[in-house]
Amino acid sequence: MYPKNAWYVACTPAEIDEKPLGRRVCGERIVFFRGPEGKAAGLEDWCPHRGAPLSLGRVVEGKLVCGYHGLEMGCDGKTVAMPGQRVRGFPPVQAYPVIERFGFVWVWPGDAAKADPALLPQLAWAEDPAWTFGGGMFHVKCDYRLMIDNLMDLTHEKYVHATSIGQQELDEVPAHTSSEGDVVITRREMSGVKAPPFWQAAMRGNGLDPEQTVDRWQRCRFVPPSNVLIDVGVALAGQGGFDAPAAVKTSGIVVDLITPETETSIWYFWGLARNFRPEDKALTASIREAQGKVFSEDLEMLESQQRNLSAQPERKLLSLNTDLGGVQARRMLERLVAQERGEGAPA
Amino acid sequence: MYPKNAWYVACTPAEIDEKPLGRRVCGERIVFFRGPEGKAAGLEDWCPHRGAPLSLGRVVEGKLVCGYHGLEMGCDGKTVAMPGQRVRGFPPVQAYPVIERFGFVWVWPGDAAKADPALLPQLAWAEDPAWTFGGGMFHVKCDYRLMIDNLMDLTHEKYVHATSIGQQELDEVPAHTSSEGDVVITRREMSGVKAPPFWQAAMRGNGLDPEQTVDRWQRCRFVPPSNVLIDVGVALAGQGGFDAPAAVKTSGIVVDLITPETETSIWYFWGLARNFRPEDKALTASIREAQGKVFSEDLEMLESQQRNLSAQPERKLLSLNTDLGGVQARRMLERLVAQERGEGAPA
Amino acid sequence: MYPKNAWYVACTPAEIDEKPLGRRVCGERIVFFRGPEGKAAGLEDWCPHRGAPLSLGRVVEGKLVCGYHGLEMGCDGKTVAMPGQRVRGFPPVQAYPVIERFGFVWVWPGDAAKADPALLPQLAWAEDPAWTFGGGMFHVKCDYRLMIDNLMDLTHEKYVHATSIGQQELDEVPAHTSSEGDVVITRREMSGVKAPPFWQAAMRGNGLDPEQTVDRWQRCRFVPPSNVLIDVGVALAGQGGFDAPAAVKTSGIVVDLITPETETSIWYFWGLARNFRPEDKALTASIREAQGKVFSEDLEMLESQQRNLSAQPERKLLSLNTDLGGVQARRMLERLVAQERGEGAPA
Repeated sequence: MYPKNAWYVACTPAEIDEKPLGRRVCGERIVFFRGPEGKAAGLEDWCPHRGAPLSLGRVVEGKLVCGYHGLEMGCDGKTVAMPGQRVRGFPPVQAYPVIERFGFVWVWPGDAAKADPALLPQLAWAEDPAWTFGGGMFHVKCDYRLMIDNLMDLTHEKYVHATSIGQQELDEVPAHTSSEGDVVITRREMSGVKAPPFWQAAMRGNGLDPEQTVDRWQRCRFVPPSNVLIDVGVALAGQGGFDAPAAVKTSGIVVDLITPETETSIWYFWGLARNFRPEDKALTASIREAQGKVFSEDLEMLESQQRNLSAQPERKLLSLNTDLGGVQARRMLERLVAQERGEGAPA
Repeated sequence: MYPKNAWYVACTPAEIDEKPLGRRVCGERIVFFRGPEGKAAGLEDWCPHRGAPLSLGRVVEGKLVCGYHGLEMGCDGKTVAMPGQRVRGFPPVQAYPVIERFGFVWVWPGDAAKADPALLPQLAWAEDPAWTFGGGMFHVKCDYRLMIDNLMDLTHEKYVHATSIGQQELDEVPAHTSSEGDVVITRREMSGVKAPPFWQAAMRGNGLDPEQTVDRWQRCRFVPPSNVLIDVGVALAGQGGFDAPAAVKTSGIVVDLITPETETSIWYFWGLARNFRPEDKALTASIREAQGKVFSEDLEMLESQQRNLSAQPERKLLSLNTDLGGVQARRMLERLVAQERGEGAPA
Repeated sequence: MYPKNAWYVACTPAEIDEKPLGRRVCGERIVFFRGPEGKAAGLEDWCPHRGAPLSLGRVVEGKLVCGYHGLEMGCDGKTVAMPGQRVRGFPPVQAYPVIERFGFVWVWPGDAAKADPALLPQLAWAEDPAWTFGGGMFHVKCDYRLMIDNLMDLTHEKYVHATSIGQQELDEVPAHTSSEGDVVITRREMSGVKAPPFWQAAMRGNGLDPEQTVDRWQRCRFVPPSNVLIDVGVALAGQGGFDAPAAVKTSGIVVDLITPETETSIWYFWGLARNFRPEDKALTASIREAQGKVFSEDLEMLESQQRNLSAQPERKLLSLNTDLGGVQARRMLERLVAQERGEGAPA
């Protein structure tokens, strides 16, 4: 259950720089590669000759050459040439709309006629030289909605990430959830607290005294179909929190771009965008490493939860106030999927 | 096919001393942990909030705290508390009767109303200071009845355990099977034989000359649902065998407590209880190591046999005189399962 | 989909010299072993007593002794003896016709009454002292017909084996396919070319100058049910190619004996038979190593292709002129399978 008429992150640009990449997105087996002038492209990972995966081939002069018998495929899914053959009548394979932007390669796994670049999530920081980004990717065996739930209810940080970003106040201070158009937002502000270890390190990296009392904020924004962007940060206490001057705060955007592989597995692209010391590559690396450790703590929980849910698919779960962000995101997704099926919105 | 209204070994006490343990028993996913005053408890391994496994949590003041969002669960399966929530209306999860006794934690996976501590198998040696016990646990991918068959027909020792407890006489001297109430007993006495290597080592450990001619006995007792306790030993020849004075014999009880995980996999708790030199921990360790080696020789055979049977489930097997112990144990189990289903005993 | 009334390679002789071997052939679980006088035999891998696999047993005086309880099985599938038992009424297990010849052990997994040694593929070189053979075996997760396709269309060499036996001319020079009785033959001759690295090494091993221009040939012979024997070689250019005198050529037979394990997996016995320097064991070893490397390059492609085809079983493939060898082989196989089912040949 996922919208197919939507942009999903297929891969990072580097993943297709050297050779083609085979990856399933929303159940579709797709080969991503760089066509003429290095433009990213996506095709069914299927050679029309004998069904070999084109992803085992290589790119020659912008054409994807099948690694089995040399069939040459164009970015439009039509066979361009094959040694010793007339290829005019060869059946085309599906070409998927692909865009490279904001530091990622995006694919539209659904109806190509509906693919509109304007529907890409707007990651303004990715094109702003005052910002930088570091991140990574995990493969996780869970429904993508479990990851959305996870990111829209950060009370779990106290339990899953007790030694890094968790702190007592996370489940003492209630969060508030609201919607703005298609975007669901859950906010929590913790005032006059001690920064947890991850943030102490970030403060230190940003030239602030990590022992100072701070105001900490989290603003989780769910952007359909499966992006969660979280404004996070700490400012010296009483300086305005999120709105404090740059000199007294350390902040960033936790970036979570979630791509369903199948109904119960995902490609999870995560990272942190920040606008303090953007030129400091060592800082980027150390934040990336720390964040990778933190986010890997979620994996066992999510995969175990998925196994439990798969074993008892009919069993009801609770939807508490803390789950409101996830619940509203799921409603949005149901609406999108229903629209896609031409059934209109559910009652 | 197994009785669910019965006590099965869930784990050893040490397995839940440090943290909760998730383990399937008779198909039920259960979390075992120590509640108030260290009392062992068992619950569905399912958090009523979002279906996360409670076994990834931790115990705080006798409550099981979910590792995802901090829901606190009591030993009765009712939610005690959760940060920021009123939990009165939370649906309970199933609580399983659990008893810690005889050196094991036991669980009753079926109808809790029928759980009666008096139905525990009586392992008197476990509470007798003149005895000691050493053992281990294997996970084996076979129907638990294949393991019962294995243990009730020890002629296999000559073939599977040729270098340790096997000896020629095992299939020369016939065994005799009888029933006493629910217990099935298969006996074999081998008189005037040379002790096989495992027993020679035990005689040496007990101060007897391992080269002496001995009388060797095996009394396999199947105690429903899936315990096989085997009186085993050797005595200097002509001194009375099983009834010989302690000074001329070396004996013990092979303990086999078998817990179905699924229809085709088990948790197999094995060991040796003995009343010679019970204080000698080095001897316990060396016997345990030797026995572990011997018992591991069965695993490939049992798992391969299971694969064969799963591939041809309708194919008939032979039931020879040597199989009588296993056959009678299976009949007992069919009766118990039929009773449980309220169908009365099969014709 | 495979003929069962046919000889398939079960194993190499060495595989059953020390102990029995359990191996599935055409879906049948079979134990191979050496019976009286070392004669190779094949039986259902099932002990009639309790269904244990006989392949875990051992051979004693030409009888296969079950490793569980000592049942002794004869090569005809009848129980010979069992300690303490009368075995007259024991049900027999299936005995499969087995022949050891041409350096392999062959099995007939279908109707034993139809097994005829005259139907063995004739590997004359295997009994000719002027020839020698070196090879190996791979387990590959693909339909055996994908391997036949692979071997009957060697244009793939240019792409899959670019650094060893591939060369430009492979898909410039067309191949010709014809039939002789049940045998399908695809020929390609490349005249006045440079030898690719594998053949340069072979020329060097045979005392020819590897830099010389050569004529290269490939004659792929598909022999039902699943043997592909390929006459391969290079001769100094203009000396007659395949028919050139021995002194100016280096040639051999690529041997591919393919045994279906299941519908989508095979045991692939490969090697090279050659009649130059047959006594040179170091050369045999180095050719074997080089060929093993080359052939292992096909495995990822074939297994990936199989995964693609399994995901879309109804999807049509192209049958080009280059595929003609494989296409005709498949037709032959359909005819054989239809005959076996007593349906006559398909229209």
